[in-house]
Amino acid sequence: MPLVDNEKDTSRSKLCGLETYFNKSMTHILGANVFIDGGFDFVVVPLMSPTYRPSLVQQFGSFSIEASLPCARSDLDPMPYLWQDHVIGKISEWIDLDSPDEMVRKDSETAFKQELAWASYLSLQACILPTPKGNSWTNYARCANQFLQEQPKEMQLWLRIPLVKPDGDSVEIYRTPDDYWKIWNSFRLMCDHNSKLLVALDNWSTMPSENSLNSWYGEPVVTFIIHTNSFFTRDGDNPKHLSEGLQKLIAYFLNHFTQIIISEVQLFSESISEVQHNYRNVDAISDEASRRRHLLPHIHYLRSLYQQVGPLSSPLSLQEHLQLAVRDVIQYTSQPFKEILESVFYQRQESDKKIYMMYKSAICQALLDRVPDEKASVITIVLVVVDAGHGALVKTSLQAAKETGRKLKVYAVEKNLNPLPYLYKKCNEKDWKDIVTLVQTDVRYWNAPEKADILVSELLGSFGDNKLAPECLDGAQRFLKEDGISIPSSYTSFLQPVKNANLYNSVKGGGDNILRLETTFNTRMYNVARLAPCQPLFTFTHPKRSVKESNRRYKKLQFVIPDDPESAIVHGFAGYFDATLYKDVHLGTEPSKATPDVFSWEQLFFPLREPICVQRGSTLEAHFWRCCGSTKVGFRSFVVFHRISFHISFLHLYSISCISYFMFSFVESKTGLV
Amino acid sequence: MPLVDNEKDTSRSKLCGLETYFNKSMTHILGANVFIDGGFDFVVVPLMSPTYRPSLVQQFGSFSIEASLPCARSDLDPMPYLWQDHVIGKISEWIDLDSPDEMVRKDSETAFKQELAWASYLSLQACILPTPKGNSWTNYARCANQFLQEQPKEMQLWLRIPLVKPDGDSVEIYRTPDDYWKIWNSFRLMCDHNSKLLVALDNWSTMPSENSLNSWYGEPVVTFIIHTNSFFTRDGDNPKHLSEGLQKLIAYFLNHFTQIIISEVQLFSESISEVQHNYRNVDAISDEASRRRHLLPHIHYLRSLYQQVGPLSSPLSLQEHLQLAVRDVIQYTSQPFKEILESVFYQRQESDKKIYMMYKSAICQALLDRVPDEKASVITIVLVVVDAGHGALVKTSLQAAKETGRKLKVYAVEKNLNPLPYLYKKCNEKDWKDIVTLVQTDVRYWNAPEKADILVSELLGSFGDNKLAPECLDGAQRFLKEDGISIPSSYTSFLQPVKNANLYNSVKGGGDNILRLETTFNTRMYNVARLAPCQPLFTFTHPKRSVKESNRRYKKLQFVIPDDPESAIVHGFAGYFDATLYKDVHLGTEPSKATPDVFSWEQLFFPLREPICVQRGSTLEAHFWRCCGSTKVGFRSFVVFHRISFHISFLHLYSISCISYFMFSFVESKTGLV
Repeated sequence: MPLVDNEKDTSRSKLCGLETYFNKSMTHILGANVFIDGGFDFVVVPLMSPTYRPSLVQQFGSFSIEASLPCARSDLDPMPYLWQDHVIGKISEWIDLDSPDEMVRKDSETAFKQELAWASYLSLQACILPTPKGNSWTNYARCANQFLQEQPKEMQLWLRIPLVKPDGDSVEIYRTPDDYWKIWNSFRLMCDHNSKLLVALDNWSTMPSENSLNSWYGEPVVTFIIHTNSFFTRDGDNPKHLSEGLQKLIAYFLNHFTQIIISEVQLFSESISEVQHNYRNVDAISDEASRRRHLLPHIHYLRSLYQQVGPLSSPLSLQEHLQLAVRDVIQYTSQPFKEILESVFYQRQESDKKIYMMYKSAICQALLDRVPDEKASVITIVLVVVDAGHGALVKTSLQAAKETGRKLKVYAVEKNLNPLPYLYKKCNEKDWKDIVTLVQTDVRYWNAPEKADILVSELLGSFGDNKLAPECLDGAQRFLKEDGISIPSSYTSFLQPVKNANLYNSVKGGGDNILRLETTFNTRMYNVARLAPCQPLFTFTHPKRSVKESNRRYKKLQFVIPDDPESAIVHGFAGYFDATLYKDVHLGTEPSKATPDVFSWEQLFFPLREPICVQRGSTLEAHFWRCCGSTKVGFRSFVVFHRISFHISFLHLYSISCISYFMFSFVESKTGLV
Repeated sequence: MPLVDNEKDTSRSKLCGLETYFNKSMTHILGANVFIDGGFDFVVVPLMSPTYRPSLVQQFGSFSIEASLPCARSDLDPMPYLWQDHVIGKISEWIDLDSPDEMVRKDSETAFKQELAWASYLSLQACILPTPKGNSWTNYARCANQFLQEQPKEMQLWLRIPLVKPDGDSVEIYRTPDDYWKIWNSFRLMCDHNSKLLVALDNWSTMPSENSLNSWYGEPVVTFIIHTNSFFTRDGDNPKHLSEGLQKLIAYFLNHFTQIIISEVQLFSESISEVQHNYRNVDAISDEASRRRHLLPHIHYLRSLYQQVGPLSSPLSLQEHLQLAVRDVIQYTSQPFKEILESVFYQRQESDKKIYMMYKSAICQALLDRVPDEKASVITIVLVVVDAGHGALVKTSLQAAKETGRKLKVYAVEKNLNPLPYLYKKCNEKDWKDIVTLVQTDVRYWNAPEKADILVSELLGSFGDNKLAPECLDGAQRFLKEDGISIPSSYTSFLQPVKNANLYNSVKGGGDNILRLETTFNTRMYNVARLAPCQPLFTFTHPKRSVKESNRRYKKLQFVIPDDPESAIVHGFAGYFDATLYKDVHLGTEPSKATPDVFSWEQLFFPLREPICVQRGSTLEAHFWRCCGSTKVGFRSFVVFHRISFHISFLHLYSISCISYFMFSFVESKTGLV
């Protein structure tokens, strides 16, 4: 039974699993924990008996079928679809593919392949891989990668990684959470960023600190494992509780589509005899009533936690709901001048009320500045709306005139033929008649009958100038009075290096691999690590002092990677913008001062072809050019990493325009090898 | 409201549309015909006023916005999502892109582009294109193709093609249904088989003959248009009826996912004045009550027809339901020896009861032939099941022994480790114990302890020998007694040229174009024209007289295209098989004697890279080789068409096996140019 019984909530995190011991009868395990009101949605169990070792089978003499069947379960117990829906396989903990002991290593390779083949045969959705042991996991990663490459199915591998050092762990090699992230990162790199390789984060400590999570922002953490001994009983109270730190972690994961697994298994320091003890023990407590008495308080507690802090714990607006669905989803950036815009596009944009409130406030101020009160009845302000669409800015301007008591004459210029029927109808309505003149033309070529006091436009892409606002407004400046006002009066693009594995993987996994990496994407980043503060890139101001002033730009940005986390991986850059509409009225997406309740703009994602590792205190240098060339607008990047140059040809093509961006970035580490 | 109110029925054909006249208010049209219980699910209406001509606008002097707005409707009347869901655009009938009159042609090009741009802007799902006029439609097809290539969206174009000569049409150019098919075929070829170009078949005659459909089997007919004047009133009865011939046509289309559109529009011989008359007339009858009185009997009649003959008119079994969903859907053929088979695969196959009934009957006969009644208690027959899987053939053999009262000793040989736990469990059960011996090995390398009387296997792919049954059974023959029996004792593959545009388009539309055309696909062909009777290809018999006898084969097939339809297009070949299990017990998919109620096998589809046109009486020649080479099994084809050679490299790769097929086929026409 899911943590919440709400059909609207389709998040994966509402499913909760139980990690338990090996038992010969899977029907028994599922019956007690999932079906007969056991409360869990799925179980995580070893696929083979923990006492099985391939070499022992051979040692005990002649070949026998029974000995070669370590799984010791039938695929028809229970029926295959129950395996698929409710079982996550657990690869044996003893497996050590990099063991110095050759017998252990050989046994490990045989068993690893057998267990994964058995899981594939059962069509399981995923298997949990044990935490890499010791200092080396090259062979382990190679074997995992080989399986990921060869299996044609969608089965995922979840690599189990401790969040912090296990309590009472005698192994002192790893001390910091960052060490564990490095294990994951090197394993992931050896598996070539395979999108079917994910993280199962295992919380050992009852009191994890909040910053232990820092390394894991932007990573594909698919499940968070908590242990029954992390729960405590308060004041002799029966129900179980979790520490406040742990509650916060769980709240974070529930909101990031991460499933919770409750584990009743003690993983470390298990000798075979201990395993056998536990194994027998399960048969004893597998009696249904005692199982329920044992685990129900835990799941009840999680259920109430989900209600309090889960994804739908606060009522969401329709817009928030829609945004939930596109979190970390990539969308191709639209190409200005090329595509036929669709009616629904205008409609969606113009339903973004907050934008037009900001515009109204800017227009009001401009009107008041332009016409003193005593002349309000005399002076008529000429206002041109560039790319009028369905007329939302026309309407906004008329409202501003009404509110300020100023007289207005509006030219609504629209180059597309298709929105005109609607605009034309509006122009014949009472409020618009005799005030608004409709003009069908490209504003760059319009032969205006008179000069304008105010130019209002909304041509901002999610990166400010990427929808060619500078080029359009240069064209419109011809008919703006010497002292005329442009709303917006300026806009600036911003950049920030980010870690976002899901986003990178969906770009990489797309059909035409390289092509897709050479373009930018719109997205709503959610599970993201922002690795350094945003920095401003290019600014454009309107009206320009001289129209001849170029729209070419160049800038070098230097991002210093802060101390925490110690090291990270850069998957690409996030792009934002901030626009000054008029004086102190601004509008934008730059995180530190983003306009609230605006949903039209997403972030722009510039993926790197090869993610690069950065270390605390190192400097990531990015060079950006905006070039006015002959036919294309693009981005190109080169990454020089430790003075070894990677060419990341990174072209973003806008077909009919005439600008291009180039990016050149490299990282230099203060501390030597990263 | 759909024709049937049944959630189980998800077929597109349950939606019924109305074709009506232009009206300035789309809200009005939708209100009367779709929403206020109008009974239709969507409407087909012209996108622009029928009196609009671009040249007239320019002629009437200076530019005015009103004159440049021929659509004369706003995209917000009704809201965009209503346009998308309920309106199919109709491109103006007067448009003639190949007119000898230059003004008409120029007007046509301008209007054609404007109308399609407007439809794109509204995000419509489809537009109906008028029937090509006169003897030439090259420019028309070019413009349509340009639009299909350039628009990034999924909007479809439905080319309106008459099913038969319109009643009372004075134009005598086209006489036969085949002529109309040729128009469609040449248009489709000029648009390079674009999968967004579909047929809207327009029935003009009240009494179409049944064979008028012959040309249209296998074609992407998306809608069938019937006219209100095809309905008649019987015996002064109020409700409307259709002729029996038309009922049969409609039944065919309803079962082929084709939507029905009722048209109240007279298309041919409309002059502008007539159009204007009708146009005004619509305003008069658009009064809601009279509209309903006028059209409700038609839709009520269709609704009752749907209940009688629609896709769910007879209760379907679960299997039939599942098959409905995969009609004409392509699936990659599995690669033997390579993939890990999944548990669900065995389970699905072994739930195909009819197959095992046939096997039981064959085994019974073999046992009776082998052991006379009087020796039934003395002789024990040794039976080997090759690739036992979950043991369905073992179970079948034991049942046959019980029914015939013969004694049996069974070896169940299975190479895969994964089904063994289940088989092992079965071997310890009462019925199997002491009779069945489980052996885990590849049968080709098995060192059998004794020779077998009977070899039972189910290694047949949908093309007989394509799962390497000959190679496997050759390996097993080593341990079969001299006079031993193999069940199956022989199998033959069959081929047939087919027309199936949907299937061809889905192969062509796949990501990696050429690669996909160079493989075969499993499919359940449904909307298909079988262009000539099946012919047998290769036969394999077991046991072989000499194991050294090669499994290489070569055969030339000659398919004579029958007289009706006069011409057609070949998209590829359909492959079937028929197996003789023992004596007169056979099992197979070859259409003329397919085993009923068997669902495990689909057909194999061999797509041609370029479909080829064939004409009545012409001969299609296909050469097939099955080669035992070093590492690959494949098909390769060359098509020589009118002595011009097309190379169709057509490789179907099986990775670990050691055979290959080659295909070489060409068509020669008796009557000259096709």
